[in-house]
Amino acid sequence: MAAVEDEVVLLGFAFSMFGMRARIALEEKEIRYEYKEEDFKNKSPLLLQMNPVHKKIPVLIHNGKPICESLIIVEYIDEIWKEKAPLLPSDPYQRAQARFWADFVDHKVYVPSTKIWRSKGDEKEFAKKNFIESLKQLEEGLGEKEYFGGDKFGFVDVALITFYSWFYTYEKFGNFEIEAECPKLIAWAKRCMQKESISKTLPDGKKVYESVLEYKKMFGLN
Amino acid sequence: MAAVEDEVVLLGFAFSMFGMRARIALEEKEIRYEYKEEDFKNKSPLLLQMNPVHKKIPVLIHNGKPICESLIIVEYIDEIWKEKAPLLPSDPYQRAQARFWADFVDHKVYVPSTKIWRSKGDEKEFAKKNFIESLKQLEEGLGEKEYFGGDKFGFVDVALITFYSWFYTYEKFGNFEIEAECPKLIAWAKRCMQKESISKTLPDGKKVYESVLEYKKMFGLN
Repeated sequence: MAAVEDEVVLLGFAFSMFGMRARIALEEKEIRYEYKEEDFKNKSPLLLQMNPVHKKIPVLIHNGKPICESLIIVEYIDEIWKEKAPLLPSDPYQRAQARFWADFVDHKVYVPSTKIWRSKGDEKEFAKKNFIESLKQLEEGLGEKEYFGGDKFGFVDVALITFYSWFYTYEKFGNFEIEAECPKLIAWAKRCMQKESISKTLPDGKKVYESVLEYKKMFGLN
Repeated sequence: MAAVEDEVVLLGFAFSMFGMRARIALEEKEIRYEYKEEDFKNKSPLLLQMNPVHKKIPVLIHNGKPICESLIIVEYIDEIWKEKAPLLPSDPYQRAQARFWADFVDHKVYVPSTKIWRSKGDEKEFAKKNFIESLKQLEEGLGEKEYFGGDKFGFVDVALITFYSWFYTYEKFGNFEIEAECPKLIAWAKRCMQKESISKTLPDGKKVYESVLEYKKMFGLN
């Protein structure tokens, strides 16, 4: 349960789709929190102290206690601040389905997505194919619903929408157009972008692309 | 909530640490279920129908509806059959911690563990080092507690104990002794093995090893 005077701090990185998930959940719940941007080249002592196992953002620090891993953070936020904007369904079967698709995003969308801009040749082509296939599976799961959560924006929506800010990057490096493959998914993403919690959190796609170009240059990836 | 007459079917594979997790959770809850052993070389139409996305065991079929992914299944079982042997803590912070460590097992124990028997040379040595480091981190997390769940066997215990049946395989292929590195973790595993839910589920380590030898021969891995 949330204390009367909650101290909520989030350690994040503006372009991280995982960090964005935690921010969207906090925004949806209208929780006041302090956001601390991390520098991934020079991690803060606070980050290293709060997530000594993985040394990664996001970390939610709630009344001094750290919670790590983005989906675990979103679920924690949903459990602590239950009343406002529930993200996970109350039915256990529907909840298991939501966890399944969020896990699918982590394994079948994220993993190939990074290879689109990091790899070349056959590996890149294979990643593009897998990425599009995964998006199509998600699109099929969405069906005619407004959100993955049904009428309401929910857990799977949080898990997936943050990737939308990277779509421009994938398209530029992959030389393909996601909307041509998955028009309904893009319509869903645009619907999500009308929510303030999303539009204020997601960075501009071109800025993400520029930062990826810079990152690749910095680490000699061509 | 569980119906009066629940029909519970589990699709598994005897040597899969993921399948074992679901079995242990059902045994802990004393749920009557039908177990169907899958042949990974020739997957059943039921498996393909019930898990069309990943086509993998375990799948729990509860009153005709499938739940996939082992940790999601264990959490579902815990939510449906709440009263008997709770696996996740009731406190949201403790629950987030349990999810964190179970996720750690999937990413930091499982991933290197397969490389111990599948790879060679530097890759194998690196995997051994990472595997032992992860076990040591878990051992530190266990501390002086009886179980990861505290006084009671819980979610992280379910997630990790199934790997114990593979320890002999890792030791044979890796030429190392886990007990010499992590004596307290082995004491914990032996404590778990005194529970009927565990001892009746975990296959004999030597049988796992023999099946791995056979598997490697079948797929030409040397």
